[in-house]
Amino acid sequence: MTRPFNFSAGPATLPEEVLQQAAGEMLDWHGSGMGVMEMSHRSNEFVSIYENAEADFRELMAVPPHFKILFMQGGGLAENAIVPLNISRGASADFIVTGSWSDKSQKEARKYCDVQIAATNANSDYTSLPPPASWKLRRDASYVHVCSNETIHGVEFQELPDLKGLGSDAPLVIDFSSHVASRPVDWSRVGLAFGGAQKNLGPAGVTLVVVGEDLLGHALPACPSAFDYKIVADNHSMYNTPPTYSLYVAGLTFQWLKRQKEGTATGVGAMEKRNLAKAQLLYDAIDHSQFYVNRVSKDCRSRMNVPFFLRDESRNEAFLAGAKARDLLQLKGHKSVGGMRASIYNAMPLAGVKALVDYLRDFEQKQA
Amino acid sequence: MTRPFNFSAGPATLPEEVLQQAAGEMLDWHGSGMGVMEMSHRSNEFVSIYENAEADFRELMAVPPHFKILFMQGGGLAENAIVPLNISRGASADFIVTGSWSDKSQKEARKYCDVQIAATNANSDYTSLPPPASWKLRRDASYVHVCSNETIHGVEFQELPDLKGLGSDAPLVIDFSSHVASRPVDWSRVGLAFGGAQKNLGPAGVTLVVVGEDLLGHALPACPSAFDYKIVADNHSMYNTPPTYSLYVAGLTFQWLKRQKEGTATGVGAMEKRNLAKAQLLYDAIDHSQFYVNRVSKDCRSRMNVPFFLRDESRNEAFLAGAKARDLLQLKGHKSVGGMRASIYNAMPLAGVKALVDYLRDFEQKQA
Repeated sequence: MTRPFNFSAGPATLPEEVLQQAAGEMLDWHGSGMGVMEMSHRSNEFVSIYENAEADFRELMAVPPHFKILFMQGGGLAENAIVPLNISRGASADFIVTGSWSDKSQKEARKYCDVQIAATNANSDYTSLPPPASWKLRRDASYVHVCSNETIHGVEFQELPDLKGLGSDAPLVIDFSSHVASRPVDWSRVGLAFGGAQKNLGPAGVTLVVVGEDLLGHALPACPSAFDYKIVADNHSMYNTPPTYSLYVAGLTFQWLKRQKEGTATGVGAMEKRNLAKAQLLYDAIDHSQFYVNRVSKDCRSRMNVPFFLRDESRNEAFLAGAKARDLLQLKGHKSVGGMRASIYNAMPLAGVKALVDYLRDFEQKQA
Repeated sequence: MTRPFNFSAGPATLPEEVLQQAAGEMLDWHGSGMGVMEMSHRSNEFVSIYENAEADFRELMAVPPHFKILFMQGGGLAENAIVPLNISRGASADFIVTGSWSDKSQKEARKYCDVQIAATNANSDYTSLPPPASWKLRRDASYVHVCSNETIHGVEFQELPDLKGLGSDAPLVIDFSSHVASRPVDWSRVGLAFGGAQKNLGPAGVTLVVVGEDLLGHALPACPSAFDYKIVADNHSMYNTPPTYSLYVAGLTFQWLKRQKEGTATGVGAMEKRNLAKAQLLYDAIDHSQFYVNRVSKDCRSRMNVPFFLRDESRNEAFLAGAKARDLLQLKGHKSVGGMRASIYNAMPLAGVKALVDYLRDFEQKQA
């Protein structure tokens, strides 16, 4: 039996192999007599799960040794507070506002530091990116925040900004929730990266934070201990009980990613090739149609989240019903944008995008 | 095949039926074509899971309508900050320190308000409870904090304190992480209750907060939005993406609890009967032996967490190895206390306690 194709923006589809393995090990992990949910986080069994997950993510994403990898709780929205609580030092932070997520981030950071919007593309309805050369960065900013892929608006940085090249010494913070592990990261340009797992890595409830050691140890007094990066790092993400099962499933996903091959590329490199092919297939189908439209500039279209509209929006309900009848699920756009959205994360196979493209064509022909 | 008995203090053993159901639904929940991990938290499917979990917990625990039930992230340790961030108003809070957990709570709260230890049993090594009549409560305290079951020290309030009867109008905050749903709660005495799920309710990563509506809306400016009880309540625990899968498994556990019967008692009433029987069996075995000892006063011994010591601690390793050989797992005591600890939460069947008691006797006889 083929599973339906699930285009949810997150929580999102997971690799079938990962789910099969998790189901198979539910009552007894590796002969331990315990399911993973039932293990003390201090047990040898769980510590090995954690250590493998950390090492696998480091290898997959080529995270340099001077970065700590933390498994936390609260998702991206909590990190919007946790980042300035940890690294703003109560001073100033510059934000590049390129969609809903970076806008939420800057609003939350205002609780903790002086926030400036150094650049925004709001005047284009978030369908383009402000060129880095136009950013008004402050010399004394404690960090610069970018959402490297905007899940709702479907806008992605194809290259991370080079802050040093722009004359800034501030660390770059990236919210990479919705495209982590879909492409390599140029860590030489990054000070801190965070992301909820529920789009590309696993279940909701575990948040990855990759943070340079130089940014640890400067938390504001108001920072809860459980969210103080230094305390979390010093305790190997076990200061409080980690979300053990979510971490385990994320670890299975890391192993699945490591096994992927595409030509000579493996791991995240293989995923990038596949994601490029999937995105091109879908954007081409939309662009070549008179029936559907995507309004994002071609130079910053997300490979992960493809918002699109029917030019005749009175047909939206019929479109969604027909999609569901073909086992193409969760295509409704975010309420703040409307229309449709296809999220085509790592775990979405090319076959899913092909099925969607076939449906786009068939639905258009039937309506014509 | 019988599963081993797992005495972990948390994350802890879960009902086999719950794990079987979760495994069976992993790839396809109720014919939706999606696993629960893969569902948007805004989908009709997941919203129904959330609503059922909320309603089932309310029914199980007889939570009155003027309390909100929140599903949050961060566990009890994060709540140690989140509670004062939300309800201290930056003023004062009184703590009853009865073991490691309440001690951690008061230390963390000092970041946010003026903390007083109104009573403690530290001088008894946390083997007794200070009688409520001796508590030095302040008239202007914004709340009074009690850990109603101390997981590490094995001390439990058999009755919640009646603050009004003690002349205080402050709301009582209880950390009920390690005995929630093992016995009824007298909500007339409670202002706020919180607990990580990973002991009695489900997987780590979801935290239950039951909070009176009158305590909402007073968060300090430094409170992260994702942890502001009013925002969480107004958004039905979906301001940020909830830990969907953990919430689902907790919901399955609530349904399992509702199905339990013991004589004419059902649900939490049935669990209380069983827990009393299990605790009595184990404490009796320890008390009647010259080989093992539990030092907690009989009037406040925990029904959930039974720390005990071999009088000859040189035999600890042999004891643990023998237990493991009999499929009795995770009996090692907490590092801060040493010795042994048997956690006998709701999901531990009487048969597990019987097997442990048999082993206690056999090990003693073999050593004698």
